[in-house]
Amino acid sequence: MEYNEEELLAKANKPQEIASQLHSYYKGKIAVTPKCRVKDLRDFDVWYSPGVASPCMDIVKNPEKVYELTCKWNTVAVISDGTRVLGLGDIGPHAALPVMEGKALIYKYLGGVDAFPICLDTKDPDKFIETVLLLHPSFGGINLEDIAQPKCFDILDRLRKESPIPVWHDDQQGTATVTLAGLVNALKVVDKKIEDVKIVFMGAGASNIRISDIIFRAGADAKKCIMYDSKGPLHKNRTDINDNPSLKEKSNICRISNEMCFDGPIDEALRGADVLIALSKPGPDSVKSQWISKMAKDSIVFVCANPVPEIWPWEAKKAGARIVATGRSDFPNQVNNSLGFPGIFRGVLDVRAKTITDEMCIAAAMELAKTAEDKGLSEDYIIPAMDEWEVFPREAAAVGTKAIEQGIAEKILTWEELYKTAESIISKARQETKMLTEEGFIGKNSC
Amino acid sequence: MEYNEEELLAKANKPQEIASQLHSYYKGKIAVTPKCRVKDLRDFDVWYSPGVASPCMDIVKNPEKVYELTCKWNTVAVISDGTRVLGLGDIGPHAALPVMEGKALIYKYLGGVDAFPICLDTKDPDKFIETVLLLHPSFGGINLEDIAQPKCFDILDRLRKESPIPVWHDDQQGTATVTLAGLVNALKVVDKKIEDVKIVFMGAGASNIRISDIIFRAGADAKKCIMYDSKGPLHKNRTDINDNPSLKEKSNICRISNEMCFDGPIDEALRGADVLIALSKPGPDSVKSQWISKMAKDSIVFVCANPVPEIWPWEAKKAGARIVATGRSDFPNQVNNSLGFPGIFRGVLDVRAKTITDEMCIAAAMELAKTAEDKGLSEDYIIPAMDEWEVFPREAAAVGTKAIEQGIAEKILTWEELYKTAESIISKARQETKMLTEEGFIGKNSC
Repeated sequence: MEYNEEELLAKANKPQEIASQLHSYYKGKIAVTPKCRVKDLRDFDVWYSPGVASPCMDIVKNPEKVYELTCKWNTVAVISDGTRVLGLGDIGPHAALPVMEGKALIYKYLGGVDAFPICLDTKDPDKFIETVLLLHPSFGGINLEDIAQPKCFDILDRLRKESPIPVWHDDQQGTATVTLAGLVNALKVVDKKIEDVKIVFMGAGASNIRISDIIFRAGADAKKCIMYDSKGPLHKNRTDINDNPSLKEKSNICRISNEMCFDGPIDEALRGADVLIALSKPGPDSVKSQWISKMAKDSIVFVCANPVPEIWPWEAKKAGARIVATGRSDFPNQVNNSLGFPGIFRGVLDVRAKTITDEMCIAAAMELAKTAEDKGLSEDYIIPAMDEWEVFPREAAAVGTKAIEQGIAEKILTWEELYKTAESIISKARQETKMLTEEGFIGKNSC
Repeated sequence: MEYNEEELLAKANKPQEIASQLHSYYKGKIAVTPKCRVKDLRDFDVWYSPGVASPCMDIVKNPEKVYELTCKWNTVAVISDGTRVLGLGDIGPHAALPVMEGKALIYKYLGGVDAFPICLDTKDPDKFIETVLLLHPSFGGINLEDIAQPKCFDILDRLRKESPIPVWHDDQQGTATVTLAGLVNALKVVDKKIEDVKIVFMGAGASNIRISDIIFRAGADAKKCIMYDSKGPLHKNRTDINDNPSLKEKSNICRISNEMCFDGPIDEALRGADVLIALSKPGPDSVKSQWISKMAKDSIVFVCANPVPEIWPWEAKKAGARIVATGRSDFPNQVNNSLGFPGIFRGVLDVRAKTITDEMCIAAAMELAKTAEDKGLSEDYIIPAMDEWEVFPREAAAVGTKAIEQGIAEKILTWEELYKTAESIISKARQETKMLTEEGFIGKNSC
């Protein structure tokens, strides 16, 4: 392959170079716009006082009507405290706002969901939870984002239990869902079974912990698998983890994985391993070629650090990997969260699911995988790209169907109805953006 | 005048009759839409990871940049606890949502402001305040709405002091601003001076308390004026008020107004009075014709209960009132909050004012009054209507200019610059709604 490392780095850096300029040009990425008729100002007598008293009283009489008479049915809050933003760390709630707005943009464009960014000025997890619990009446769901670990685990757990609307932490569930989809298809390509493979996880952040969790739920044998944090492999004797009550998720990995209590370096753990899933430090030298060489035949390598993967894909392939996935859009097999949350929340909202179960995540992953499979898998195509639009209504239908099956959906629709509903809402969002651009309401900037 | 009471009541009820149907048709009144280019999905590399890291870091280095690189500069939260919604009382945060969405709609359509409705699931004022204080990073300002008195006074006071962004309670400051504008022009028409008039306030809710407050600040002599609550006139000897520490705003009215300690019924208080400002129980019989007959020559009557004024305007005129204002759009002289907040917040955001002072409210009222005066005042035209669009950029310019003068504005612009900025933003919002309707993105419903 004819890659030039400098060119690739330049390409990787390009979005960041133009991003500040473009953000400054548009002064934010989302707007609030009317979606009801305003044929003249008399309509405000209906939308506001005195007419609005009537839908208000309808909701007093029947609280469920809030889903019919307001935006609640389609509105998601994207909430962060700014304590772990991208790879930038604790940059605070103001600096986190561009990310949350970007997420809201993607929610609308790919999922037809009205998402609104909310950055909270507190680092206290209890205050964070209490605030999110008070915010629910306006929203149909909550997307948590960029919260430091380990507090993010407890925040998600408590909110899933206590909130009357579904709560999602994209860095956990979203990343896990999309990674599982890629793994499932990669295993099909190399013709290995999930229950047989040895997986090494490099990095023990919230994302990789949840990835391992969902992969184990999907059939992988935890006992064969090993996770590494910065101090080495996780196992039963890691007292630094097991004695720390705030690390109960990591401690669980210590308990269920690495049955042999292997305690050597990662290159030794990779000997004979089938899969490496790295969500670690940006590369290109965080994973060494020699490590990959030690893996089993037909090895699968996920190197998902951004903006530069832990090892360049061609280096990994040269070292023997058969399938390589990264977080980047300019390589094949991009593991991209944006493939998950817009379609998943579309389905959650359309059946008005009470919560988002792990089974719903797995259903989404399987549908995502199947979407690529239907087109024909290959080493360079284990996962669809964002512009394969059918992904999102398919995920929505799969997630909605699973919620109905689990008895946690308020609305019962068929797979086809769910697909059509989602397709229609998402397609409208895309067309609206196109039209706003054509008509000059979204400015053009050729940067 | 040839009014038919039944027809008028039918007309008054019409918006409520069609409101539920229309709300159900549109399933909410606002949407979140992209306002930045999405020419293809590669743009998400700029708007989201990895490009977005760059504006994030810009904000880390210079926190003020959040106003340049995100939506914060133009975003207002419309926040309520649902404890005193319209005239409906404590209907809770879900049932309040249609009102807050309506407010957000009007903010956009008349003021070009991106407003987002947030209903909080708590009645505890301390929790309410704490939550609003944690929400500030995403917003350029806060609009409080429909909160019960007396807690609304303390909530507004504390938030004005403690919040890093401007806080506004529309039921207090908004109503007061628009009423003052109407009063100022009415006094011009009858050629009386504000410092000379005797005003009787009927109703001692949050709105009328704040109206009296701003009218006194604007030059009226409180000592000559009398306010009535359900138990009678306020004065120094009202121990039921003065001994209740939670009623300090009302107690202040007791202290400064009604110097003579008049303790009779309201019809006696109205004898010789120049102005009646009623924000009391819906009529049409809450104010009697005989009361109006006792007022001074050229009397001015504000009867602002909704949907039916405390007395029908033609009855008030027959009884001797020279000028009558109501809250209704089908009579002359509508005192309408929507004439205030969209333009006022436009100005607040455009100069990035740190707070909203009473002087800024008075400046807005004076500009609102002048807008009508420039067209020629009459008994039936003391205040502009919502469709006189120049009202909003004029208010914005007046409010912004006052903030600059008071040294609380972060951005310094001339009156003309402020006017042009506001006009351009507001005009875009209206045109966008029109275009979304023409292109079919906002459905047509002929109800």
